[in-house]
Amino acid sequence: MVDGLGAPLAAPLFDRVALIGIGLIGSSLARVIRRKKLARVLVAGDASATVRAKVTELGLADTVAETAAQAVADADLVILCVPVGAMAAVAQEIAPHLKPGAIVSDVGSVKSAVLAALTKHLPPHVAIIPAHPVAGTEESGPAAGFATLFVNRWCILTPPDGADAKAVKRLAEFWAAAGANIEIMTPQHHDLVLSITSHLPHLIAYNIVGTAADLEAITQSEVIKFSAGGFRDFTRIAASDPTMWRDVFLNNKEAVLETLGRFTEDLTALQRMIRNGDGEGLFNLFTRTRAIRRGIIEEGQEIAAPDFGRHRDDEA
Amino acid sequence: MVDGLGAPLAAPLFDRVALIGIGLIGSSLARVIRRKKLARVLVAGDASATVRAKVTELGLADTVAETAAQAVADADLVILCVPVGAMAAVAQEIAPHLKPGAIVSDVGSVKSAVLAALTKHLPPHVAIIPAHPVAGTEESGPAAGFATLFVNRWCILTPPDGADAKAVKRLAEFWAAAGANIEIMTPQHHDLVLSITSHLPHLIAYNIVGTAADLEAITQSEVIKFSAGGFRDFTRIAASDPTMWRDVFLNNKEAVLETLGRFTEDLTALQRMIRNGDGEGLFNLFTRTRAIRRGIIEEGQEIAAPDFGRHRDDEA
Repeated sequence: MVDGLGAPLAAPLFDRVALIGIGLIGSSLARVIRRKKLARVLVAGDASATVRAKVTELGLADTVAETAAQAVADADLVILCVPVGAMAAVAQEIAPHLKPGAIVSDVGSVKSAVLAALTKHLPPHVAIIPAHPVAGTEESGPAAGFATLFVNRWCILTPPDGADAKAVKRLAEFWAAAGANIEIMTPQHHDLVLSITSHLPHLIAYNIVGTAADLEAITQSEVIKFSAGGFRDFTRIAASDPTMWRDVFLNNKEAVLETLGRFTEDLTALQRMIRNGDGEGLFNLFTRTRAIRRGIIEEGQEIAAPDFGRHRDDEA
Repeated sequence: MVDGLGAPLAAPLFDRVALIGIGLIGSSLARVIRRKKLARVLVAGDASATVRAKVTELGLADTVAETAAQAVADADLVILCVPVGAMAAVAQEIAPHLKPGAIVSDVGSVKSAVLAALTKHLPPHVAIIPAHPVAGTEESGPAAGFATLFVNRWCILTPPDGADAKAVKRLAEFWAAAGANIEIMTPQHHDLVLSITSHLPHLIAYNIVGTAADLEAITQSEVIKFSAGGFRDFTRIAASDPTMWRDVFLNNKEAVLETLGRFTEDLTALQRMIRNGDGEGLFNLFTRTRAIRRGIIEEGQEIAAPDFGRHRDDEA
């Protein structure tokens, strides 16, 4: 198939899957679960009545539950797709209602804090296997999702010490069937790696867009008009969901501050090169940064078209 | 027409146009000049024999000149499409060969330094009208250009005090025929505006890609695999031409250092919010940055598709 998802499975991987939180990621998961027939029954839960109505309207699940507690009843796999800051409360709510032997996972962008929250609140008779699919767009909500979001993206599993190997394997199979590549690492290492490949880029994008909005000598209209010089790329990331990203920074404070410290050190050195007119130093840095993009394109994590393919239709 | 360029002109705007430097911008200009018939004769010059051979092979010009001096002979419009740091040398070379009354312009990303270099070296009998089309991709060289690059992008003209109004008007007509919107401002204001909408974004992108490459605890393979979390967007900008960007920073030092100072101040405040766990402060910043992107999309400076349209073909 063109979209890389392949044919539906002959038999579902799980009998009953419950998704809690039907935003961009949750609704994309719902779509791929139904398209690939990964569950016999798919239950969706969301705290917002508006979202639940939209999920019903879009036909994203077999059942739309009023509460998270109802949603997880009898589920073999529960995936929490709520902002990182909401994980503890949801875990507390669902804890008494989980089926023994159920796998409880999540899709949060931070893993140490989530593992701690789940471990604290969930009963010992469930298998906690946190996960993070490194995929998304700047849009939010159940209408923004699509079934191919995870195709050829990486899903990182961070099972705690002593996790049930069979549960890890089943969850890995689930994500692989959704089109993802699987990597397993510790929550700590995850949080450090993602601090540079995701959290810091968002922080910097939010920051520069804020700086641009505050400059007195330049109007917002000028910023908008001349954004094709590079700025507009940053605004895409800075349009991401504020709640989700607030929670990421509150819950991965240590790694983000460490990585930000390195970034700032490097930026200070670059500032000095500009001040001193060190053309050779600038040229050397600007040359070696090209290699990483080549690697990203070669590994299929980026399209090869220049300018993100914005000009794809130009010659039509 | 689908691509926004419209039909060729009934009569060329200029008799003879010379382009010096046939990279991404120069070759895009060559393509649109020929497609729209903006010149009766188009002459291309480039210091590199390899580039000249490629221009001949691609059929981008009527004549490919060996030297810049030969290229400008008898031209009514000369556009320097070389890196900002090469402008002075090219101006010096062509000065004795320019036709009286010719318009000499450029496409450099910095305007004060270029105006100074051109004014210093060119004779008083030509009209110096610097310009900057705010358009491009991360690719370089004559094969990377395309005729629609300037469609609905802004071209900023920065005529010096006392510039010939007719020459400014003719150059504006030329860029409008290439599909661009025209804005006129002082070189100083240009350099300040572009420092935030273009130069600082490039500096930051180069910097974060450099930081990522240097982190000891994270492998390059991990950076590449998990780049879809936001990082990969920065690598596009950091793949831009190193010579061009070295020259930008060497020639717009003052405005870049000023804007960078504001960025760093703001980043320090953001760092403190994270350290203090100030969720409200983070949420407020992350919310107000969304408006600018909406403006950019509404003004047609960005496509509306999520994730830069990377998923456009997904549902095929």
